[in-house]
Amino acid sequence: MSKRLGKQTVYLQNPPTILATSTTVGQKEGSGPLAQSFDTVLEDDYYGEKTWEKAESKLQKETARAALEKASLSPSQINYILAGDLLNQCVGTHYGLRDLEIPFLGLYGACSTMVESMSIGAMLLDGDYADYVMSVTSSHFCSAERQFRVPLEYGGQRPPSAQWTVTGAGCAVLAKQGNGPFITHITTGKIVDMGITDTNNMGAAMAPAAFETITTHFEDTGLSPSFYDLILTGDLGVIGSKILLESMAKTQFDIASKHNDCGKMIFDIEKQDVHSGGSGCGCCGAVLCGPIFEKLQSGELNKILVVATGALMNTTIIQQGESIPSIAHAITIQKTL
Amino acid sequence: MSKRLGKQTVYLQNPPTILATSTTVGQKEGSGPLAQSFDTVLEDDYYGEKTWEKAESKLQKETARAALEKASLSPSQINYILAGDLLNQCVGTHYGLRDLEIPFLGLYGACSTMVESMSIGAMLLDGDYADYVMSVTSSHFCSAERQFRVPLEYGGQRPPSAQWTVTGAGCAVLAKQGNGPFITHITTGKIVDMGITDTNNMGAAMAPAAFETITTHFEDTGLSPSFYDLILTGDLGVIGSKILLESMAKTQFDIASKHNDCGKMIFDIEKQDVHSGGSGCGCCGAVLCGPIFEKLQSGELNKILVVATGALMNTTIIQQGESIPSIAHAITIQKTL
Repeated sequence: MSKRLGKQTVYLQNPPTILATSTTVGQKEGSGPLAQSFDTVLEDDYYGEKTWEKAESKLQKETARAALEKASLSPSQINYILAGDLLNQCVGTHYGLRDLEIPFLGLYGACSTMVESMSIGAMLLDGDYADYVMSVTSSHFCSAERQFRVPLEYGGQRPPSAQWTVTGAGCAVLAKQGNGPFITHITTGKIVDMGITDTNNMGAAMAPAAFETITTHFEDTGLSPSFYDLILTGDLGVIGSKILLESMAKTQFDIASKHNDCGKMIFDIEKQDVHSGGSGCGCCGAVLCGPIFEKLQSGELNKILVVATGALMNTTIIQQGESIPSIAHAITIQKTL
Repeated sequence: MSKRLGKQTVYLQNPPTILATSTTVGQKEGSGPLAQSFDTVLEDDYYGEKTWEKAESKLQKETARAALEKASLSPSQINYILAGDLLNQCVGTHYGLRDLEIPFLGLYGACSTMVESMSIGAMLLDGDYADYVMSVTSSHFCSAERQFRVPLEYGGQRPPSAQWTVTGAGCAVLAKQGNGPFITHITTGKIVDMGITDTNNMGAAMAPAAFETITTHFEDTGLSPSFYDLILTGDLGVIGSKILLESMAKTQFDIASKHNDCGKMIFDIEKQDVHSGGSGCGCCGAVLCGPIFEKLQSGELNKILVVATGALMNTTIIQQGESIPSIAHAITIQKTL
């Protein structure tokens, strides 16, 4: 079987194993429906630090260390660490991982970072450039609000279409050899911009990118939604998920019965007052590395498509009247081959 | 020969070719000593746009299009475009490349981005995940000043250790097959933080990262400085270069007779009043893709080591008292094998 399928998909001939994962989440996420599946729930979102940015760095650091421990590996055994976050110049990552002394490849994919990281990491393993690779990402509600929106102290009201940035981090240790779960397919997304300008409606901006990547994945691979137990989008939230499902239903690839969304799963949407649901790099990171990985290990899930979505704007360019370009990257994970 | 050498280096068994490059620079860079080697010199750094951020996006867009034209390729023939820039959330890249419709992998490596991009791109080609890959990066003096320092209108004075962000972009089209110049070795850097906190002295912060990556490259490969015609650092500038050369002279790898720095080359340091020299993703991007590539094609250079350096902080975390973590990524380019 060829390594490359169609326009944008790669089939890995030596599928890497997800050896171990680790997660850390904030208080609010630890009060949500997935609470039992996270390794660490913070008692205080400052995490013993003096600033939210330093707390986010610590999220990455401790989550990465915990994943290494679970994998019984030392930093010197890891060939590459691929990571990023939402903060300007990705400082959550740089300050969080600087002490690890692992060759580092910095990424920016907004909330698509977890899957971008696992995509590149999986190709580096499949191609024999590495034995072990780590993928890490994080987000923090408080650091994101002050950077992207308004300082929390301002107490601005959020419209119903807004999403709530997850405080959390996820880390996956990928290995060239192992017994699965395996990363078998990678569909790398293109930048899609449908002209949405409302930064309080990210779901609507990102849904078209998810649509493009998912349809391309099925076209490239010849697979259909029935192949999968779960098609998991990164964080489209309630509104974005609705748009995606409606769009997909008009194609030959109706995914409604297979779909869920990390942003919808991590919070109790009604009770926790999170409007359209969760978002942030840490949303897909924590949900994939926590409850989803747990179900892959237990056999409750066997074949999943993970489609992480990201909105690629900043505040300056939006103030200049620009719309929101988005992207979605997808990977197939299978418990057995 | 094994693909992996030592701790951090990969030797490519099917070395990709740099098929074509393209460069665009601003007015000041177009008045410097390398002016004749850039494809396009802007007459106005606004580049016909209303904001500097949009001008920077256009830098990437037009430079990428020009590189495609030189390579006689259409966007649909490119498997991956790997790119990033200095702006918050890399908007120079996202808005610049959104119309190209090429599978996109976003990177953040600060001023090391050009080599990070070529490193990952070269592995994707060598491993047969792609036939063609594009590496793009940019920076813009005006968008960088207002984001990282003070608005230009403020007219703040710059200390002698400060570097001048290059307005420019570089793009390289890499091909799986071709007649060279070839990318043969990749040494991926680790994050290094020696405690420097002065953001007006980036050269001093980045020099230790360059030192680490260069010494590791020689240790991993068994090569010595005499193997190379040129050891080109990204943008250490005058001060960072001096620190690097002094540190290297204390090891068995004295590189003084082989070294130059993109930040020292792109401006006439004295006459153009740029203090310690040039910086920014576009500095290494434009110098490597312009004059250096020209000399590789003409045969004036045959074997070079390119070591792009990046400072990984943002303004918020520096205001919180943090130091500046840095990184350096290196690739070997050889005209013939």
